[in-house]
Amino acid sequence: MNEAKGSSRIAAATGSRRQFLKMGLGVGGAVAGATLAGRAANASGADPAITEVQEWNQYLGLGTDAAPYGVPSPYEADVVRRNVRWLTASTESSVNFTPLHALDGIITPNGLCFERHHAGVAEVDPAAHRLMINGLVEKPMVFTMSDLMRFPRENRIYFLECAANSGMEWRGAQLNGCQFTHGMVHCVEYTGVPLRYILEEAGLKTNAKWLMPEGADASGMNRSVPLEKGLDDCLVAFKMNGEALRPEQGYPLRLVVPGWEGNMWVKWLRRIEVGDMPWHTREETSKYTDLMEDGTARRFTWAMDAKSVITSPSPQMPILHKGHNVLSGLAWSGRGTVDRVDVSLDGGRNWQTARIDGLSLPKALHRFYLEFDWNGEPLLLQSRAIDSTGYVQPTKNELRAVRGLNSIYHNNGIQTWHVNASGEVENVEVS
Amino acid sequence: MNEAKGSSRIAAATGSRRQFLKMGLGVGGAVAGATLAGRAANASGADPAITEVQEWNQYLGLGTDAAPYGVPSPYEADVVRRNVRWLTASTESSVNFTPLHALDGIITPNGLCFERHHAGVAEVDPAAHRLMINGLVEKPMVFTMSDLMRFPRENRIYFLECAANSGMEWRGAQLNGCQFTHGMVHCVEYTGVPLRYILEEAGLKTNAKWLMPEGADASGMNRSVPLEKGLDDCLVAFKMNGEALRPEQGYPLRLVVPGWEGNMWVKWLRRIEVGDMPWHTREETSKYTDLMEDGTARRFTWAMDAKSVITSPSPQMPILHKGHNVLSGLAWSGRGTVDRVDVSLDGGRNWQTARIDGLSLPKALHRFYLEFDWNGEPLLLQSRAIDSTGYVQPTKNELRAVRGLNSIYHNNGIQTWHVNASGEVENVEVS
Repeated sequence: MNEAKGSSRIAAATGSRRQFLKMGLGVGGAVAGATLAGRAANASGADPAITEVQEWNQYLGLGTDAAPYGVPSPYEADVVRRNVRWLTASTESSVNFTPLHALDGIITPNGLCFERHHAGVAEVDPAAHRLMINGLVEKPMVFTMSDLMRFPRENRIYFLECAANSGMEWRGAQLNGCQFTHGMVHCVEYTGVPLRYILEEAGLKTNAKWLMPEGADASGMNRSVPLEKGLDDCLVAFKMNGEALRPEQGYPLRLVVPGWEGNMWVKWLRRIEVGDMPWHTREETSKYTDLMEDGTARRFTWAMDAKSVITSPSPQMPILHKGHNVLSGLAWSGRGTVDRVDVSLDGGRNWQTARIDGLSLPKALHRFYLEFDWNGEPLLLQSRAIDSTGYVQPTKNELRAVRGLNSIYHNNGIQTWHVNASGEVENVEVS
Repeated sequence: MNEAKGSSRIAAATGSRRQFLKMGLGVGGAVAGATLAGRAANASGADPAITEVQEWNQYLGLGTDAAPYGVPSPYEADVVRRNVRWLTASTESSVNFTPLHALDGIITPNGLCFERHHAGVAEVDPAAHRLMINGLVEKPMVFTMSDLMRFPRENRIYFLECAANSGMEWRGAQLNGCQFTHGMVHCVEYTGVPLRYILEEAGLKTNAKWLMPEGADASGMNRSVPLEKGLDDCLVAFKMNGEALRPEQGYPLRLVVPGWEGNMWVKWLRRIEVGDMPWHTREETSKYTDLMEDGTARRFTWAMDAKSVITSPSPQMPILHKGHNVLSGLAWSGRGTVDRVDVSLDGGRNWQTARIDGLSLPKALHRFYLEFDWNGEPLLLQSRAIDSTGYVQPTKNELRAVRGLNSIYHNNGIQTWHVNASGEVENVEVS
C-alpha cells in the first residue's frame, strides 16, 4: 500500500479506466439510466483524454510570484461583465451586466459586479477624499477616511439591484440571456460604519427628517433618503468582500442602503445633507419613478420586491444532455429573506418547491436548485420567490395589469425560458 | 429645497466646511476628546482638500467597457499577496501570503487568497479534465466536469489554513507582519458536490475506510483522508466566491476538507482512490507531521485548532492617532464556531471580550473588533479564541511545553504585537 511512483500509478489507473469507461458505455446503452456516470459517459461521447493521458496527468506551471493579485483562468475568459452597445449613447453613462449564468452560490466576485454609471467612474485618491455631513445637524463635520476608521464597524452580506434591472422586459421578451435580463444585481459582504453613528456624531436637529447622500462623480449623483432608513440599517461602506471597494463601486466610500434600489447606494460618497423634506433631485423625478398608464408617476418606490431568475438552464447555458440535470437560480427580496422558491417546468401550470441551499440572509441573494430529469421534451421554465413577508413574486402580466406599459423600473415579474428539443434556451413570454 | 446646481452647492458646502473644521480644531485643543471628529481633525493636521476643493469634487473617469473583469484601484497597489524570497529555493514550490492586515470582514477576495504550491500551478483545460474514483468501489468511474454538474450542489463558507501557518514563529518572533505570520489562511464561499454523492455513485465496498485524493499537478499531491470525513462534510468544489476556482486554487476542481489542514484540500483533483488503510504518502510522513522533543512525530493531526490574530493594529498597520481606535482581527476553529474572542492590551494580564461582528459559521473565519482609546503608552496586544467545544487558544509557551521546539506545523499560539509610543507595531514574544 505504499505510494507508487507517479508514472506507474498513472499507468495502472489508465488500465482500469479504459475498462470501466467501456463498461459505462455498455451499461448506458443497455439499461437506460443505470447510473448517473453511465448516462454521462454515454451522453458525452468520445473521451479526448483516452489518447492524451500523459497531458491529462502532468503539468508544471507558474510559481507564487506570477500574480500578486490573482486573475481567473484563461479558460474562463468568457465570464465577464458585458454591456449592450445599442442601449445607451456612451459607455460613461451606461451599464454592464453580471454574468449570472456562469456563477453559483450567493457571493459575486468583485471583478464581476455589474456597473451602472451616470458620468463614468470617479477616480478618487482616498487620502484626499472627504465625507461632509451638513444641513440640519448641530455640528457640520468633515471626515477623512482615517477618521471613519475610528467608528465601530459592521459586516453584512447584501444584494444590490438596479431599479432598472429587467426594465427592457416590460414590453415583452427582449434580451436573450439572464446576464442581460437580470444581470443588474450582485451580492457581496460589505464592511462599513453604521450611518447612524456618523449622524449621531454630528448631532441631528429635531426637525431632521431626510438625508441627501451625494457622490463625487461628475454627475454629482444625489438622492433623498428618509432619515428613518438612514438610522436603521444603512452603512457607510469602504470594503466589499474583504478588500477596498472597487473604483466602479464607489472607491473609497459608498452608501449601502439594504434592500433598496441601487441608485440610492451613492458611490464615491462625499457628502450627506440632512433636511426636513425631500430634495426632488433629477434622479427621483425624471428618472427612477414609475410612469403609470394614466400619466401619473409612482415616486419613492425604493424597496426591491421579491424576485427570482433561473440562471441555468438559460439562454447562455443550454441543456447538454438528457437525464439528470441541475436547475439553478437566484432569489432575493428587499423586504427580508426568501422563504420559498417554486419552479415550474411547464410555464406555470405545475409548481415544485426548489431547494434553497446555503445562507438565507435578509436582503441578500439566495441560491436555489431543482434536480430534475429531462426526457428531451420542450420545457417552459419559471421560478417564483415567496419572501418572509408572505409576498409572492407576480407574473409579468399581473404587474402590467396594475402598472401599465410605460414602466422601466421595478420589474420583478416571473421570467420564462423556453427549452427546445435540442436543449437550446430562449427568452419568451407566456400569456 | 429644490436641488441647486452642482457648483453653487459645492461653494456653499465649502463655506460651512471651513467654519466647522476651524471649530473642530478649537474644540479638539480646548476640551480633550469632546467628539470623535474633533479629535480626528486635530490629529490629522493640515487638510489638503481645503486648497483643492475642485479636484475633490469633480472627476470624469472610465466607462463600462473599461474592464470586463474588474481590478482594484491603483491606490490599493500595495494590497497584494507577497512571498518571502529566502524561505524557499524556488517560487514553484513555495508560498505567498494573504494581506490580512489590509482586509476586513470574513470573505477573502479570490485574487488575494494565499498560494502554496509543491510544483507550481497546474494549468488545466476543464474540457480535458477528469475525476477518477477507483480502489475499493463497486464500479470504478471517471467523471468529466460536465458529469459533475449533474450532482446536487452545496454552498458553504469555509476557512482554509495551511498547517504551516505561523510555522516560523515556533522559535520566537520571526516575521514582522500578520500577512507573514498568519497569512496562510483565507475564507471563501465554495460551491461543490458533496463527496458522499460521488462515492455513493461508485459504490463503496464494505472494507472501504480511507480515501486518497490526488492532484494533477507535477507533484501529484496526495494525502490519506479517513472515509468518515469524506462522507461527512467534504465537497468536490468547482466555484469559489461564485466564480470558477482560480488556477492557483485548483481550477477546475479541488477537494474541500472543512476545518482540516490545507494540504489535504487537494487541488487540480484528478483521482480519489478508496482503500482500507492509509497510504503513508510523502506529505503525511516526511512532511505535515509534528516532530516532538523526543524524536517521535505526531501524525494525522488534521484539524486546525482554534486560533486568532489581531490584524490591525499590526506591524503593517501602525496606530496613527491617540484617542479612539478600532482594533480588528480574525478568529477561527476547525472544530466549530468561535464563541468568544478575548483581547488583551497588556500582554495577557487583563482581558476584555471583543465584539464578534457578522456571520458566525462553523469552520469559517470570524471577524472581531475592540474599540479602545489610546493614550500613547506602549501596548502589548494579544487575542485568544474560545471555540464552540470550549477549547481556549493557548499561549506559544504552553504549546512549546507540550510539543517542544522541533515543530513547524499547527502553531495556534497567541500572537503578541508590541505598540511603541509612536504607534509603530512590532512582532514580539512575551514570556
